[in-house]
Amino acid sequence: MLHQARGVYIVTQTPFDGDGGVDHASIDTLVDFYLRHGADGFTVLGVAGEAAKLTADEALGVARRFIARAQGKPVIVGVSNPSIAQLRELTGKVMDAGASGVMIAPPSGSRTEEELFGYFARVFDEIGNVPTVLQDFPFSTGTWMSVPFILELVRRHPQIQVLKEEDIPSITKITRLRAQQDRRIAILTGNNAMFLPLELGRGIDGPMAGFSHPEMLSTVYRLHREGQVQAAHDVFDCYLPLLSYENQSQWGVAVRKEILRRRGAIRHAAMRKPGPALTADDLKEIDLLVTRVQRAVAERA
Amino acid sequence: MLHQARGVYIVTQTPFDGDGGVDHASIDTLVDFYLRHGADGFTVLGVAGEAAKLTADEALGVARRFIARAQGKPVIVGVSNPSIAQLRELTGKVMDAGASGVMIAPPSGSRTEEELFGYFARVFDEIGNVPTVLQDFPFSTGTWMSVPFILELVRRHPQIQVLKEEDIPSITKITRLRAQQDRRIAILTGNNAMFLPLELGRGIDGPMAGFSHPEMLSTVYRLHREGQVQAAHDVFDCYLPLLSYENQSQWGVAVRKEILRRRGAIRHAAMRKPGPALTADDLKEIDLLVTRVQRAVAERA
Amino acid sequence: MLHQARGVYIVTQTPFDGDGGVDHASIDTLVDFYLRHGADGFTVLGVAGEAAKLTADEALGVARRFIARAQGKPVIVGVSNPSIAQLRELTGKVMDAGASGVMIAPPSGSRTEEELFGYFARVFDEIGNVPTVLQDFPFSTGTWMSVPFILELVRRHPQIQVLKEEDIPSITKITRLRAQQDRRIAILTGNNAMFLPLELGRGIDGPMAGFSHPEMLSTVYRLHREGQVQAAHDVFDCYLPLLSYENQSQWGVAVRKEILRRRGAIRHAAMRKPGPALTADDLKEIDLLVTRVQRAVAERA
Amino acid sequence: MLHQARGVYIVTQTPFDGDGGVDHASIDTLVDFYLRHGADGFTVLGVAGEAAKLTADEALGVARRFIARAQGKPVIVGVSNPSIAQLRELTGKVMDAGASGVMIAPPSGSRTEEELFGYFARVFDEIGNVPTVLQDFPFSTGTWMSVPFILELVRRHPQIQVLKEEDIPSITKITRLRAQQDRRIAILTGNNAMFLPLELGRGIDGPMAGFSHPEMLSTVYRLHREGQVQAAHDVFDCYLPLLSYENQSQWGVAVRKEILRRRGAIRHAAMRKPGPALTADDLKEIDLLVTRVQRAVAERA
Repeated sequence: MLHQARGVYIVTQTPFDGDGGVDHASIDTLVDFYLRHGADGFTVLGVAGEAAKLTADEALGVARRFIARAQGKPVIVGVSNPSIAQLRELTGKVMDAGASGVMIAPPSGSRTEEELFGYFARVFDEIGNVPTVLQDFPFSTGTWMSVPFILELVRRHPQIQVLKEEDIPSITKITRLRAQQDRRIAILTGNNAMFLPLELGRGIDGPMAGFSHPEMLSTVYRLHREGQVQAAHDVFDCYLPLLSYENQSQWGVAVRKEILRRRGAIRHAAMRKPGPALTADDLKEIDLLVTRVQRAVAERA
Repeated sequence: MLHQARGVYIVTQTPFDGDGGVDHASIDTLVDFYLRHGADGFTVLGVAGEAAKLTADEALGVARRFIARAQGKPVIVGVSNPSIAQLRELTGKVMDAGASGVMIAPPSGSRTEEELFGYFARVFDEIGNVPTVLQDFPFSTGTWMSVPFILELVRRHPQIQVLKEEDIPSITKITRLRAQQDRRIAILTGNNAMFLPLELGRGIDGPMAGFSHPEMLSTVYRLHREGQVQAAHDVFDCYLPLLSYENQSQWGVAVRKEILRRRGAIRHAAMRKPGPALTADDLKEIDLLVTRVQRAVAERA
Repeated sequence: MLHQARGVYIVTQTPFDGDGGVDHASIDTLVDFYLRHGADGFTVLGVAGEAAKLTADEALGVARRFIARAQGKPVIVGVSNPSIAQLRELTGKVMDAGASGVMIAPPSGSRTEEELFGYFARVFDEIGNVPTVLQDFPFSTGTWMSVPFILELVRRHPQIQVLKEEDIPSITKITRLRAQQDRRIAILTGNNAMFLPLELGRGIDGPMAGFSHPEMLSTVYRLHREGQVQAAHDVFDCYLPLLSYENQSQWGVAVRKEILRRRGAIRHAAMRKPGPALTADDLKEIDLLVTRVQRAVAERA
Repeated sequence: MLHQARGVYIVTQTPFDGDGGVDHASIDTLVDFYLRHGADGFTVLGVAGEAAKLTADEALGVARRFIARAQGKPVIVGVSNPSIAQLRELTGKVMDAGASGVMIAPPSGSRTEEELFGYFARVFDEIGNVPTVLQDFPFSTGTWMSVPFILELVRRHPQIQVLKEEDIPSITKITRLRAQQDRRIAILTGNNAMFLPLELGRGIDGPMAGFSHPEMLSTVYRLHREGQVQAAHDVFDCYLPLLSYENQSQWGVAVRKEILRRRGAIRHAAMRKPGPALTADDLKEIDLLVTRVQRAVAERA
């Protein structure tokens, strides 16, 4: 049951080959890499997964490959789409393929809460009883949801079992949500995990985020669960300069893919066009930051 | 009492002289022109009044001049401002100067209804018991308000005595507002009166709009009140091609000022910079449309 | 060749049946209706065609059906999509199916002209040598294009053969485009034809618009071409109150479909959900406006 | 000369007293605090300085007080305003009061580069030969400026002597600007200094940012200038968890003011309403993060 989700849900990259095609073999090595570093679940076809650049068939193919390789770990599939018909179609296909649920953000350009309630009523009419992650990522969608609005939406739609919280600040919203909830749902946090140890202190169930070093996510999560709060912060702080560097919108995704390539997780670092490409200056900064992280981690150990 | 407002509230232009300074003498002739053509009240310092281009002192000076010349007709002053401190300051000064109330729109960039409720609570804390027109003009502010939201805001703040409704479509919103209101407020409509006879049929109390031919507004309003619905449409339709021409955003304001100049209402047509300037092609179209309106009105009479 | 396009390009509705499925039989009757009333070409899968609510397969099916029924008249297919991969996919399929070209708007959320130039470079790399209508509809996309930007884009990409101009004001932009163009492209105008006779006076090649009474479009176009400018305005003005009523965003589309249903062009008026539904008050207004238009047209004849 | 600006320009807070009035005495202690910690200049009335909540008189009073206390260090005053008339008025008054220059961001809602060029042409016509910082902060203004656009603007207007760069990523933009500039201007970076050591590596002249611990800004700047790049990163990384915590929009400003209060720089931490207020949970996190920073700094020393 998704409302009991806890642990580290990795927001996955989509690997492409040198010609811009989906690199399915790299999906396998990437999943293995994530699992080796402590992944408890996956979220595929998110914003950082370049979902918006795929065809419908490609999207389905990517989701299936991740599901097939996930060794039974839950896979959540991002299905947000301006067209509810396309959202429904992809939802049906990925649930048939074995997904654990779907992730849906409110559409860009939503104007009022009345309209948003109508939107979600329609969506759930269409997709039926599918476990759903509600994504609260206003800086990407342009659509803000207040705490009272989210609570009411959760009240109306039992399908919402997880909230991916990535408004800023997330921490104050988490506290308010936890204090006022009628029904407990899982809260996982995004924003590339920039506030992970504090968010854990506010009562979340884990990160739903991508990072070139997923071992940080799993270690911080585990330490915090064990009550070692300061140790969790210590580990987190070692990685923070690199985490922050990767937290630079789509350009940060290019950085992340380059490091994943260096670590052998994928064969090619390229993003599908149109997308940023790294320069020699950028690569030197990656060298500097990765070296510093490695040294900090080694010193701490 | 502003909640009993009815009739024709003219959204006024702000006249400038050849150097871009406020032309106070033209305010007097403009008010006289409006009154001659049936104005029951005025709304000054609105979007079409170029309020956003004035200094605080200029704005106050314009409001005072309109109030002084209005022969006791109610004058409402637009005081929307990103700064609540500035909003409060102008409100205090224009109410002291004899304004009948102020007009306030929700701020651009509002994110949630919770935030908007907080904004208006703060505003009314600051300005106190001042009769207020709530302006629902989402295409200008970028902030949409649903019917349930507006009704709740009216419930919370007795200062709101008038709604200026200029969402699109306005007509369906008017019907819903009238059907569900707890407390009757006046509803006046903007959008340059593009839907005036239909809005009157939906239960509004009059237009709050600008037009180079305000006699259309007063005649349509009067005929509709007398039950002469088809005649009201007949008059409206005569002017509609010109009305629509003036309904082209800030460029339409330049057209309106040119026609007001031709009719002797103001001395100079110029808008304060930065703003559109009319070309020879534009002036020829104005000739064509004004001539056609005059002929249509003459034929009907 | 599309750059020689002239005449009346109807922006088509997509008919749905009572269950929300695409009503292919109604496409046939709708095309016949448009042709009977003077259509010279068609633009399918536009904003008013509810394209954003369809699946990829449905979109292709709709385009094919229109093409099959169009009696050889050019059919342009709207292919704008946040995903360039999906844009390319649909473009390939509809060109194979016999479309005359595609229509592309700049994506929502475009940030700078540099980014926009990059976007279109990528698009034309992907789709190759396909005749393209550039859609300048900023109120829908949120992306504005200046005259110098459009001219430079036309310079760079010979595929752009038509501009669908629907900024406001359109007229001033048309004059500037015509005066400064290096290469003549066709300019057709949208905005539901709200400014058609004036736009014809500014040098456009015809309307690309939807209306429940397409005979207005073809008559105004023909009269203007014949130099009967005042007569063109006379006809236009007869229909303007209804045209303006239909020019109310997606709600106006619901009105248009209801009138098309009444005229026998389609079987069902419903829009696919989520979308507006008409009330009894709305239907009475349609009665009133349609009756008034019919009378005005009859009186003129 | 402002184009030779280098060093640490502190983006200042505006202190308020318990009743929401400007606390002028706290301005003095705040300036002293900044100077003790290495400030080379000041930027007052920025976004983080709650400028948008002040009246015109209050804004001028705040600017004057900062200038009077700055011991001859340059003070730049943010004058961005939807009204160019108000922008000009404040510019004139603060330059008379001894400001070194003004900071101007492109207005929200700008639509095209042509319009933006026109805006700045108008602004510089109005304010004349005043040294100006161009603020590139698109996440606040909603208006993006590309590198070619900025370079052209700098070319046209010699008044632009400094660029405050706070787009994301800033680093790639800095490299492109430096490589392509015709005329050297100073580049100072904002974003709360989140990328300061990397930005210094890309060729900026210093930070223009606020932080509760300005000694970090001056130490990192000094070390980097001396070629001690790794040491600069070491110091930066000690503070990064707190820096990131303060980098949470307006809520982060509340955090910063609370810490400045604890450090004796200002008497009251409150932001003017409407604004965030800290909870007990928030205050505990501040304790935790400040303690951790102090320990990290001590360990490093």
